[in-house]
Amino acid sequence: MIPAFSNRINQEPTSLDALFRLSGRADLISFAGGYPDPTLFPKKELNVAFESRIKNASAEIFQYRSTLGYEPLRKKISNYAKTIGVSCETDNIMLTQGAQQGIKLLASLFLDDFDGVVVEAPTYVGGLEAFNEHKPTYYEIPMEKDGMNLDILEDTLDKNEVKLIYTIPNFQNPTGYCMSIEKRKRLAKLASEYNVIVIEDDPYRELRYVGESLPSIKSFDISENVVTLGSFSKILSPALRCGWLIGAKEIVNQLSSLRLSYDCQSSNVLLEGIDEYLEQNDIGKHIQKLRIAYKQKMDTMIRGLADNLPSECSFSKPKGGFFLWVTLPKELDAKELLNNTKKVTFLEGSSLFALSKENNHLRLNFTGITEKQIIEGCNDLGNTIKDALLELAV
Amino acid sequence: MIPAFSNRINQEPTSLDALFRLSGRADLISFAGGYPDPTLFPKKELNVAFESRIKNASAEIFQYRSTLGYEPLRKKISNYAKTIGVSCETDNIMLTQGAQQGIKLLASLFLDDFDGVVVEAPTYVGGLEAFNEHKPTYYEIPMEKDGMNLDILEDTLDKNEVKLIYTIPNFQNPTGYCMSIEKRKRLAKLASEYNVIVIEDDPYRELRYVGESLPSIKSFDISENVVTLGSFSKILSPALRCGWLIGAKEIVNQLSSLRLSYDCQSSNVLLEGIDEYLEQNDIGKHIQKLRIAYKQKMDTMIRGLADNLPSECSFSKPKGGFFLWVTLPKELDAKELLNNTKKVTFLEGSSLFALSKENNHLRLNFTGITEKQIIEGCNDLGNTIKDALLELAV
Repeated sequence: MIPAFSNRINQEPTSLDALFRLSGRADLISFAGGYPDPTLFPKKELNVAFESRIKNASAEIFQYRSTLGYEPLRKKISNYAKTIGVSCETDNIMLTQGAQQGIKLLASLFLDDFDGVVVEAPTYVGGLEAFNEHKPTYYEIPMEKDGMNLDILEDTLDKNEVKLIYTIPNFQNPTGYCMSIEKRKRLAKLASEYNVIVIEDDPYRELRYVGESLPSIKSFDISENVVTLGSFSKILSPALRCGWLIGAKEIVNQLSSLRLSYDCQSSNVLLEGIDEYLEQNDIGKHIQKLRIAYKQKMDTMIRGLADNLPSECSFSKPKGGFFLWVTLPKELDAKELLNNTKKVTFLEGSSLFALSKENNHLRLNFTGITEKQIIEGCNDLGNTIKDALLELAV
Repeated sequence: MIPAFSNRINQEPTSLDALFRLSGRADLISFAGGYPDPTLFPKKELNVAFESRIKNASAEIFQYRSTLGYEPLRKKISNYAKTIGVSCETDNIMLTQGAQQGIKLLASLFLDDFDGVVVEAPTYVGGLEAFNEHKPTYYEIPMEKDGMNLDILEDTLDKNEVKLIYTIPNFQNPTGYCMSIEKRKRLAKLASEYNVIVIEDDPYRELRYVGESLPSIKSFDISENVVTLGSFSKILSPALRCGWLIGAKEIVNQLSSLRLSYDCQSSNVLLEGIDEYLEQNDIGKHIQKLRIAYKQKMDTMIRGLADNLPSECSFSKPKGGFFLWVTLPKELDAKELLNNTKKVTFLEGSSLFALSKENNHLRLNFTGITEKQIIEGCNDLGNTIKDALLELAV
């Protein structure tokens, strides 16, 4: 007999499970995932980069390396950091197995059981699952079109002990909203005043399709309380499993020790291959190509929803990122809707709330599918919602 | 101000830190690390494999994939499993970010704070660090030349609640000892009787230089209590960060959910590259080459120690693996010795004991350095020990 799992383990299949499962079904139009468009991966350029780097490198490319990751690539990240208003050295940077690992390691570094954690409502489910293992005391802060409500945050910090604030400032997953520059400044100030760590999870920053980029929250960091996370997953390829984490050396040092027991280090071959890709190519040009293609898909989805959703529904109109957020009339349950669609699948929103579990929202992804699928899917979704409303009226 | 780290975090630099740091210093002869010989990496073959697989695959090679990892590679692992006496399906297998991640995930799946964990004394420090985050109640079982003492283990299981038993049955890190076939059988039986999970950590199995391989502990598994871990790190390249875990589907399913919050999944590019390498090459032939080269290094180190260590010292004479284990007279402290050597560095053994912290042992690696360095290093080590003994005698 197998002994009992830890009490920390939720034995129900998680939303992330469902998400990956739904995303892989070829017979469905999946608005559920958060996948990039595979036809946009620079497959040939990446192959050339890996092939030439392995050929020209010494055999040490296949050896164990430093826990922080290949230094020349960290140097490139430190140069990139300047463009988001952050001045840092390579020792402030750890290359991680996707940004997800950064969240997990920070949760593990700072959280004891029942510690206070602030999250946006709604938020990224992978963030919640990284925190859940530490049985946190959650405080939900409502999302607004210009980022989380900081008056409520300040009140929360005033009345409770909070260790971490988790936020996605750009094209938030799932709402698509961006935090305003004023809120970024004030959030950094609050973190410093209340000695709280801000995890700034920023994988979508470069995927802005309209308007100008805003400085990172980290750029307003007063006393090294902000740790910012980035990733190559959405701008290059998720299968490279390469993200980064920029924070105080004291934090990065501890994470580096902690990481040894998790998985030792990232794959040096992958890190050198990415480094070579960046040497040989202008990633800015590649990202510009992604922006054009994804903007078109986003616009198609916005039009598709405007044309098909009944007027009782509302949805966000983001300026970048991967997702739209649909709000149904309160009488409808997104989970039930999911059972009644014919072709389209989506992420129902209740699992994206730490506490309030609002059940009348849908997260829709537009990057991983074709425009034809977007149009068809919006049609199916609209019909299903209309049917559900009719049924209510009967 | 940065808030306090979790109480679980040991803020002292860990032994793994020291190990990686010492291993990287070019001015020293390092017996400290656990690195393969980089000149033996099949660099050209791996480059051809990656290049041709990326070229011939669809763009999906750079996309997110399943959490368990590329199925054709899991199929190959399930075929390999037969050679160690294990019959399993691909759903019993998860590809991990090195075997280290397997240990970490299992610790996280099963351990609540203060749960009982049995470890060999001495054991692998990365195992201890994976368990430490859960503040385990450790039970140390002394290592013998044919594996841990199972009478003491049985007595321990009888008197205490134990959740996990962690063992390295082949060419144990750090002693180099192998568990006998009788002990393997009895351990599997005890695990079943007492409902305890056995983590069979087996990265050195294929690196046997003398004699015949023994069936895995998992091959004697009665009620799915044994989870066995393997890795490409020592037989192909550690920079591929690819290990595997074979266990009950119930366990693998839960680990798969848990993994999503850790790092989502392994790099599909790496997994497909390894798969292609295995398609194009006979890894058995490659391993045979490693065995010949490493046996020669091991024999050189055994001779070097025999020629240079004073008779008050003893050391293990393994039949495979990466390490020799030296025991000094009780009056000598391995840590002090480390400060007095001129050229050679090693892993002092006290950190490899969960509880007893015996301070008169050294772990020596012979794979990552040249024979010339082995001879020089043994000479330096011998002289340092002789000097220390002389000083004691004065």
